[in-house]
Amino acid sequence: MSAQIVNRKITLARRPIGAAELDDFTLIEEPLREPAAGEVAVRIELLSVDPYQRGRMNEGRSYTENLQLGDVIVAAAVGRVMASRSDRFSVGDHVVGYLGWQEYATVPGRALTRLDTDRAPVSAYLGVLGLPGVTAWMGMELIGKPQPGQTVVVSAAAGAVGGVAGQLAKAAGARVVGIAGGSAKRAFLLDGLGFDAAVDYRDPQFERRLAEATPDGIDVYFENVGGAVASAVLARLNDFARVPLCGLIAEYDSAVSTAWDLSTLLARRVRIEGFICTDHMNLWSRAVSELTDLYRAGRLRYRESFAHGLQAAPRTLLGLLRGENLGKQLVSLTPEAPVPPEDSR
Amino acid sequence: MSAQIVNRKITLARRPIGAAELDDFTLIEEPLREPAAGEVAVRIELLSVDPYQRGRMNEGRSYTENLQLGDVIVAAAVGRVMASRSDRFSVGDHVVGYLGWQEYATVPGRALTRLDTDRAPVSAYLGVLGLPGVTAWMGMELIGKPQPGQTVVVSAAAGAVGGVAGQLAKAAGARVVGIAGGSAKRAFLLDGLGFDAAVDYRDPQFERRLAEATPDGIDVYFENVGGAVASAVLARLNDFARVPLCGLIAEYDSAVSTAWDLSTLLARRVRIEGFICTDHMNLWSRAVSELTDLYRAGRLRYRESFAHGLQAAPRTLLGLLRGENLGKQLVSLTPEAPVPPEDSR
Repeated sequence: MSAQIVNRKITLARRPIGAAELDDFTLIEEPLREPAAGEVAVRIELLSVDPYQRGRMNEGRSYTENLQLGDVIVAAAVGRVMASRSDRFSVGDHVVGYLGWQEYATVPGRALTRLDTDRAPVSAYLGVLGLPGVTAWMGMELIGKPQPGQTVVVSAAAGAVGGVAGQLAKAAGARVVGIAGGSAKRAFLLDGLGFDAAVDYRDPQFERRLAEATPDGIDVYFENVGGAVASAVLARLNDFARVPLCGLIAEYDSAVSTAWDLSTLLARRVRIEGFICTDHMNLWSRAVSELTDLYRAGRLRYRESFAHGLQAAPRTLLGLLRGENLGKQLVSLTPEAPVPPEDSR
Repeated sequence: MSAQIVNRKITLARRPIGAAELDDFTLIEEPLREPAAGEVAVRIELLSVDPYQRGRMNEGRSYTENLQLGDVIVAAAVGRVMASRSDRFSVGDHVVGYLGWQEYATVPGRALTRLDTDRAPVSAYLGVLGLPGVTAWMGMELIGKPQPGQTVVVSAAAGAVGGVAGQLAKAAGARVVGIAGGSAKRAFLLDGLGFDAAVDYRDPQFERRLAEATPDGIDVYFENVGGAVASAVLARLNDFARVPLCGLIAEYDSAVSTAWDLSTLLARRVRIEGFICTDHMNLWSRAVSELTDLYRAGRLRYRESFAHGLQAAPRTLLGLLRGENLGKQLVSLTPEAPVPPEDSR
């Protein structure tokens, strides 16, 4: 590897107050470090954009330590090994890891996982077979436990996690209702993912539409958003409903706060439980194995939104927080950008 | 049985608006019905007074259908069989069942359970070995799951459910902190039940006292009250805390409403779950068996508060809702009233 490689990275320039802005990020350049013993240098091809990144920009801690000013923005990424001093990786290997929003990374080999590109396209390892897919699987496996004939509602259903959550519930025999913003997302849920119903939370008649879509009430609510959507769902929870609490995207960028009455939880014997994927890493391989089987059977579909070039990452995250993306949001760093498939599998 | 027996019962005269009042109840007299085939006539000796009775006085439904105007107030009770047309019961048997606030009851045999008075005093079957004890057991078994060294907080800890919940957590090796109102209850928790700490929610420095009593945070919160106590506890929940949601006594008689932020539940990955004992009747016998073992080993202590005479039942419930009772609240209907033991076992 030549010592002249200049790495570019997006770092946290300042902490957002309220909604995040482009000026909260900055692009810096620095020479790429040569790998030491056990390390690998990776040229990154695809960056992941996920709602949790917004939370890491705040002061203090959420479920893990947040970013410090000057840190590269945390992100999963896939790339190819360009130099290796690890026994486990060879030049040309496709790998995935938490490499951050940057063009190159020099990291210990143990921070990387080699990808099997015969099983699925590399981008799937940032989506349905990566953190979003495994997160959805864990929420349903550990908490939601959808049963045949039950009604499962998923918020942010057109997003990377929500799409998988809904399809897992379909695979379990449940009736699945997705909540998303706008007619394009509704159509995607119905036609692209095969949900039984889809409700637009921007519809002035949202509560009524939700009631029409859930005539038998709601048995599982896979929660990604909070806010008014969560309140409307609470009113329709059945006895013994389960609520995997995965995210609260409506709160991340605003002063919205969502609180639920304990009296409703008691009267209906509801279970609500916050969870994050990384608390259950012992289940990761089982999750990926089951998701891969479903994917190869054609029962785990997805769509991807691509932005291009490292500089696009911050505005892509801001757009995602406003609900502008459909499906898994990625940033491609390769000149030959993958063409977004119409309806990937 | 003579046809001249006049039964007296306490019925719902009107629905409370806000705090329940004595005028919401009325005492009526009517002839006791002779048992039909399969039925049993019972002379009641002890009535149970429990917080859930207040909820049943409201319109509509909570987790079950509420009382209609004119209905006898629902209550567990123990008594002796005075006439039987059931193969399963003989005159003189001690029985327990949901007989209501009345002096006699004619009910199907299947509504009754015969008591083993060698194992425990009859009153225990309305307390530590009855609905309150089994409720505590189920909350800990199904949701709380206290582990050795963890910190368990119980609200309404000097009540019938709370006292058992705390002792079950002690038996599991946890550090147990009780919350109750007033110095007498605090002393009872520490000296009578062997809790590790006790905090008075009426203390102006309540939040500070709670923090001092839970230096390592809170892993399990057995929730009986809601309101300001619940808010103070929420702020001290640890990652992966479990909250068996058993009751909200602070809300029953007032306009208090308790809501918890989903963001805290998510950040700390808290599990909160409403439950009621009667949803899990398949576990009842296992619960009673384990509670009986603990009781006979001297590790399940309790205190009882007795009122005397049917007329006392309404004011006793109102007192309980104001937190005036200590331990299990009962109403004795027998002339030879049991003497409350100082520290029963």
